[in-house]
Amino acid sequence: MVTVIGLSQIRLSHDSRYPWLILIPQINNCSELDDLSFEQQIEVLKASNILSAVLKNCFFPTKLNIAALGNMVKQLHIHHVARFEYDDAWPGPIWGRGDAIVYASDKKKALIALLRRSITNSVYATAN
Amino acid sequence: MVTVIGLSQIRLSHDSRYPWLILIPQINNCSELDDLSFEQQIEVLKASNILSAVLKNCFFPTKLNIAALGNMVKQLHIHHVARFEYDDAWPGPIWGRGDAIVYASDKKKALIALLRRSITNSVYATAN
Repeated sequence: MVTVIGLSQIRLSHDSRYPWLILIPQINNCSELDDLSFEQQIEVLKASNILSAVLKNCFFPTKLNIAALGNMVKQLHIHHVARFEYDDAWPGPIWGRGDAIVYASDKKKALIALLRRSITNSVYATAN
Repeated sequence: MVTVIGLSQIRLSHDSRYPWLILIPQINNCSELDDLSFEQQIEVLKASNILSAVLKNCFFPTKLNIAALGNMVKQLHIHHVARFEYDDAWPGPIWGRGDAIVYASDKKKALIALLRRSITNSVYATAN
């Protein structure tokens, strides 16, 4: 896990082909965005904006892809992916395309440290 | 176009393989969700919830897929797709999968009429 923002757990996808964060609201038995209360949705929106800022600040992507799909894993989770014109799946979607390439453990550790710092900065900037 | 909800235009995808609505905030030069002001995001969230309710009420899907991708068309647009275990792409994403099958014009007309009624009902239910 990378960190927690409000009611959401933030995880890094194990697939190193794309900078890819997953926001998981810690609310039981939710599979759709509108299973959350409106207040919970606002919290999730704020966390999502922080992830967008972090992906932009850390990776300078061509485009963000933000998606709540969940056809395979029902628990509500929202993908936040930094996309580039030179990435493996561009301009298609990343899901169901080739096999994941997992991070080397030192690279993963360094990336999580970077993401945590950037999230802390972004949370601080939003609050002030 | 199906209708307008708040600041967003609602369109029906021309691909009849999936019940598929597209929400397009009528704000110039926006490509990412966080290009919108927070107040505009709240308006878009409310419209998105209405589309989720409409897709559930009209089609009883297995899952909703909600996504802001925009790798090909930059203007911010959010897909809302009703997914079924028996649909063409399940459990994968719908984008970049086979060729679109366009609606017969009478079917499209009837579907848009159904969607308009359902959106009106959902907007009314939300406001009261």
